[in-house]
Amino acid sequence: MNTIGRIFRLTSYGESHGAAIGGVIDGCPAGLKIDLEFIQRELDRRKPGQSHITTQRAEGDKVEFLSGIFEGYTMGTPIGFMIKNQDQHSADYNDLKDVYRPSHADYTYDQKYGMRDHRGGGRSSARETIARVVAGAIAKILLSESGIKINGYVSQVGQIRIDKPYQELDLNLTESNIVRCPDPETAKKMIHRIEQAGRDHDTVGGVVSGVITGVPSGWGEPVFNKLHADLGHAMLGINAVKGFEYGSGFAGTELSGSEHNDVFIKKEGHVTTITNHSGGIQGGISNGQDIYWRVAFKPIATLLKEQQTINKEQQQTTINPKGRHDPCVLPRAVPIVEAMAAIILADHLLLSRLSKL
Amino acid sequence: MNTIGRIFRLTSYGESHGAAIGGVIDGCPAGLKIDLEFIQRELDRRKPGQSHITTQRAEGDKVEFLSGIFEGYTMGTPIGFMIKNQDQHSADYNDLKDVYRPSHADYTYDQKYGMRDHRGGGRSSARETIARVVAGAIAKILLSESGIKINGYVSQVGQIRIDKPYQELDLNLTESNIVRCPDPETAKKMIHRIEQAGRDHDTVGGVVSGVITGVPSGWGEPVFNKLHADLGHAMLGINAVKGFEYGSGFAGTELSGSEHNDVFIKKEGHVTTITNHSGGIQGGISNGQDIYWRVAFKPIATLLKEQQTINKEQQQTTINPKGRHDPCVLPRAVPIVEAMAAIILADHLLLSRLSKL
Amino acid sequence: MNTIGRIFRLTSYGESHGAAIGGVIDGCPAGLKIDLEFIQRELDRRKPGQSHITTQRAEGDKVEFLSGIFEGYTMGTPIGFMIKNQDQHSADYNDLKDVYRPSHADYTYDQKYGMRDHRGGGRSSARETIARVVAGAIAKILLSESGIKINGYVSQVGQIRIDKPYQELDLNLTESNIVRCPDPETAKKMIHRIEQAGRDHDTVGGVVSGVITGVPSGWGEPVFNKLHADLGHAMLGINAVKGFEYGSGFAGTELSGSEHNDVFIKKEGHVTTITNHSGGIQGGISNGQDIYWRVAFKPIATLLKEQQTINKEQQQTTINPKGRHDPCVLPRAVPIVEAMAAIILADHLLLSRLSKL
Amino acid sequence: MNTIGRIFRLTSYGESHGAAIGGVIDGCPAGLKIDLEFIQRELDRRKPGQSHITTQRAEGDKVEFLSGIFEGYTMGTPIGFMIKNQDQHSADYNDLKDVYRPSHADYTYDQKYGMRDHRGGGRSSARETIARVVAGAIAKILLSESGIKINGYVSQVGQIRIDKPYQELDLNLTESNIVRCPDPETAKKMIHRIEQAGRDHDTVGGVVSGVITGVPSGWGEPVFNKLHADLGHAMLGINAVKGFEYGSGFAGTELSGSEHNDVFIKKEGHVTTITNHSGGIQGGISNGQDIYWRVAFKPIATLLKEQQTINKEQQQTTINPKGRHDPCVLPRAVPIVEAMAAIILADHLLLSRLSKL
Repeated sequence: MNTIGRIFRLTSYGESHGAAIGGVIDGCPAGLKIDLEFIQRELDRRKPGQSHITTQRAEGDKVEFLSGIFEGYTMGTPIGFMIKNQDQHSADYNDLKDVYRPSHADYTYDQKYGMRDHRGGGRSSARETIARVVAGAIAKILLSESGIKINGYVSQVGQIRIDKPYQELDLNLTESNIVRCPDPETAKKMIHRIEQAGRDHDTVGGVVSGVITGVPSGWGEPVFNKLHADLGHAMLGINAVKGFEYGSGFAGTELSGSEHNDVFIKKEGHVTTITNHSGGIQGGISNGQDIYWRVAFKPIATLLKEQQTINKEQQQTTINPKGRHDPCVLPRAVPIVEAMAAIILADHLLLSRLSKL
Repeated sequence: MNTIGRIFRLTSYGESHGAAIGGVIDGCPAGLKIDLEFIQRELDRRKPGQSHITTQRAEGDKVEFLSGIFEGYTMGTPIGFMIKNQDQHSADYNDLKDVYRPSHADYTYDQKYGMRDHRGGGRSSARETIARVVAGAIAKILLSESGIKINGYVSQVGQIRIDKPYQELDLNLTESNIVRCPDPETAKKMIHRIEQAGRDHDTVGGVVSGVITGVPSGWGEPVFNKLHADLGHAMLGINAVKGFEYGSGFAGTELSGSEHNDVFIKKEGHVTTITNHSGGIQGGISNGQDIYWRVAFKPIATLLKEQQTINKEQQQTTINPKGRHDPCVLPRAVPIVEAMAAIILADHLLLSRLSKL
Repeated sequence: MNTIGRIFRLTSYGESHGAAIGGVIDGCPAGLKIDLEFIQRELDRRKPGQSHITTQRAEGDKVEFLSGIFEGYTMGTPIGFMIKNQDQHSADYNDLKDVYRPSHADYTYDQKYGMRDHRGGGRSSARETIARVVAGAIAKILLSESGIKINGYVSQVGQIRIDKPYQELDLNLTESNIVRCPDPETAKKMIHRIEQAGRDHDTVGGVVSGVITGVPSGWGEPVFNKLHADLGHAMLGINAVKGFEYGSGFAGTELSGSEHNDVFIKKEGHVTTITNHSGGIQGGISNGQDIYWRVAFKPIATLLKEQQTINKEQQQTTINPKGRHDPCVLPRAVPIVEAMAAIILADHLLLSRLSKL
Repeated sequence: MNTIGRIFRLTSYGESHGAAIGGVIDGCPAGLKIDLEFIQRELDRRKPGQSHITTQRAEGDKVEFLSGIFEGYTMGTPIGFMIKNQDQHSADYNDLKDVYRPSHADYTYDQKYGMRDHRGGGRSSARETIARVVAGAIAKILLSESGIKINGYVSQVGQIRIDKPYQELDLNLTESNIVRCPDPETAKKMIHRIEQAGRDHDTVGGVVSGVITGVPSGWGEPVFNKLHADLGHAMLGINAVKGFEYGSGFAGTELSGSEHNDVFIKKEGHVTTITNHSGGIQGGISNGQDIYWRVAFKPIATLLKEQQTINKEQQQTTINPKGRHDPCVLPRAVPIVEAMAAIILADHLLLSRLSKL
């Protein structure tokens, strides 16, 4: 149950304070030129300590490829990789061995498995997403061969949000600020909001938006594996995610059908639609328009303040977590959202080779 | 790609105007007593023509079981079933053979497969969900052995919504009105809103909410197959769905962590939480609290009015659909939402047998 | 666990004396022209009562397609089908309800599931293979588009065997006699052997050989899903099969490497090998040479004579089966062997589209 | 396609001369005590250089576990592991970059992927089986909790074979000699035969036999995933394997049904069978008797003598391989056969939890 994808597949492994986080990417076609520096840059976008609004843990997060790439190209064989864990302050977590942090996975892991690695959250740590970013980077390289580009950005932090649709934003500005919001004015407010949460020893949630351009029509499996269903599944598998919507989303439920329908027209020799409430997907299959979606992240559960809870013996107790934690996961979630989208799209790219004679 | 589930699995088949809709349920344990009347009642909740606010197509939708059940009990062998199609006015669709209806799957099917069965939407018709309701009914029977109950209801139609949380509703009232809204006052307004859409030859969207009670702690696979991720995947695979959120959902993104965290307490000898923003799932694994979620449905795309579009030769044309269509899919979507939730939960019930020595 | 294949997939259902045997074929590409008469002919090669050396049960075995085929072509959607059961003399089996026939699946089904449909062997009946023959026929049609041909034949019945390699046989003669042996002299002896078994109220085993021509090089997945491993898996999943070998097989274990190696040469502009001990597969991947293999069938377990056994209460008893049974399964096994090979090859045909950029 | 198993799953990666061979074991239940020394001993049984009749390559083959094990116990999370490659004489293979060795996978890999890592056979090297031995060792630990024991041994080398059934052998003697044959007299002859092959710069094939004791009745999936079908699939996925038979196997095809049937009796309070031609499996499901089988290995293809072949440009050429190679793979194949059997049995152990209510 640690595998995602049917053709392009990632199997992930690793606990936060174990020896390594890693994975195996299976099903990547042979002959793809791999840019190792690009992959490391993607990891650097995810890694802790990249700015003053993220955790100050200094993890190097250097990926080592163990197989599947030869003389710079994929061989069609499985791509094994690992990122060694280091800078682990495991002792910070000793107090948590027998205590269940509120809204964390400590209690549920113990219920499911009868045990857990309590250090740094073990398998439930978002550190596991490193494996996804590596696989996503390779998926991005594969997709870029078909002219497909995936853009994530922070569109909301707490109650501060961008009110413009993505078409009115310059997505090239996303990486120009530390909160990864392409609207510079809103970005400033978001940064202040996160700084305030840090001062309060509290945390704050928000929304990551995503846009994919260049997907041709005809991708997606129309019943259970609709393109947006697989995309949503991947998003909902990211730590702290509480919701997913694409195209018109929840807001679209208030429209009437005559307002919502996307009229087909021919424009410059191509089929297109006047509006795109469909979010680029109709009947679960891409129609050639931009695919866009939004992902809700709850405020992360680790607060650097005292909280009530219970322990393993089901007695009332309090915790007062120490350590180095993000007050807001959003900026670092952007590359993870993009990576998961890339894995799903790469899978459907390959699936699309199978639909016709 | 027409299979959902890993242990409890449904493989679905059928086109709207083909010979039959059906499926195979594989992985249901042996020894489950099957109440055939219950299954038929579930189908009746989904079927067209059940009230004046749904389509007047009179489909019998009687299920025939072909295997897997012997002397009233499941045998552990695959359960094949079918529902014959009838009352097909296929000629109503002749005009649509070479025309792409806006926001339907006509264009995208042709792009993916190079062809399609245009009659009644073919495979993209929501008629396919019959197979899901059958499998969901069997999953509900399996879950009820463990005391688990799944409740769906309509919480929004267009801009009319229930403002109360589910705890303040009497979910036993859901089936007391034709719109399946457990709040009688709101139900009346919703029915008026749907009647109005019908008069306008237009359609209206909305939200179905779901609540599951009785799930023990420890169900769910913590990384890619988080319990809510599988649930969301199943919901997003339902026709016309645009979004999914569980627990605090998108609204929770505005809270701070100290507001959002669910504090563990011991109450009457059991571990519970004071609040339930987590929606019964932490780290992808159930914690024993109620699981609740919301599903956004767009207004359905078939309008009984003239609309612009293009045809197969990519020329501009207009369509003016005839036939018998729902102005609002919400009331009939409730049993489908419940069925998909039941399939996912049944799968995780069985997966939960595998986690410990 | 009733599904075979990863891309081209058959999910099978049905008990011998239930309502129907059937299945769903998922993953067949759109646009394949379906010859329904060919499919029925394949079923007729499998059906009982086709000659005096097979069982005299007169099953019609007419397949009904329920979905996935429109105006004579596959649509890329799942192909549901069923064959209604008829001419069931279920009462013949009343005696067997609580008794375990030797070397049958009665005892093991009860151990696994706690129950079973005892009528006609229920799910363990070879009648289930009807679904495989239907899927295999569609796979054969798909493969024939690429010039691939699958030939099965009976090469051994009891101690009577063809001593010639397949290259010295005229495989067009296979259907010229009722035992499906392409060597007319041996065929006569085999028929006598089967007649004798029938007179003895006994049964006799044997070997089916298979040859596939026209497979291009490059098919197969090199580690766990080697082309021959998938082929062997499919063969071993046929009722009564005890062994599988391909290429030089068990006899090849006695050769030295210098005798066994297949030397590559260039011949008429193509790469070929002087010998073909490899059976057309090297490292799990096809090399363009003929693929050939052998499948061992035990004598079937149903004897029309008294035998000792135990009953459900684990007491000693005897059985004396009645009914209409084959003294030798081999002639009717030929289309099943071919069908399973076709399903595997169709799956690998589609998988081969995924290996390169 | 580099994954085996459905519940207990191994995903393998690695090329012979890449950075590492490794894998991820997913689905192992939590709470299993892991004996690391036992795992290393299993690897030592497989490793080169263990006696004068195996290759003299000195590979350390020390396994490093990267996740999934905490304080000596499995946690239910994926078990990542790797074995670093070392002592690689990659230059020995420079000549083979553009030449296709007869009966190797060089040609077929190039046909499938358009490229390959030629060093030491790359992914097609039997060095990949290290990952299987690690996973198999963990599977053996899991199985031993249920009292199940897996025994492999060499029963044939070239034309030298043990003529006794396994019941007449003392399987505790298997490890008492370097060829892993439990019959000391035959072992000596086998060793001489392998020494002779080495002197001839040639190779020799043979048979590995396997016996599993202690499997309870009721394991196996009765249609496509019969217990013996999955076992055979796993065996046929081992490098150089040409055939698989279980129970009476190919020899059983010559018997009549009345000779072959295994009569059920009650003995010391347990159901058993007088004979065991069924090999412990009936209808694909275990019946509680010993499971036994045989695996045919061809003579390995690497000869230290000149052979004709073709190169990448499809021109005739010769090769004369150097390096350190086994004249006979059989002794080192025993732990691999056992490991693959263990993986399959562990998978079915877990599947058996799902069959009943």
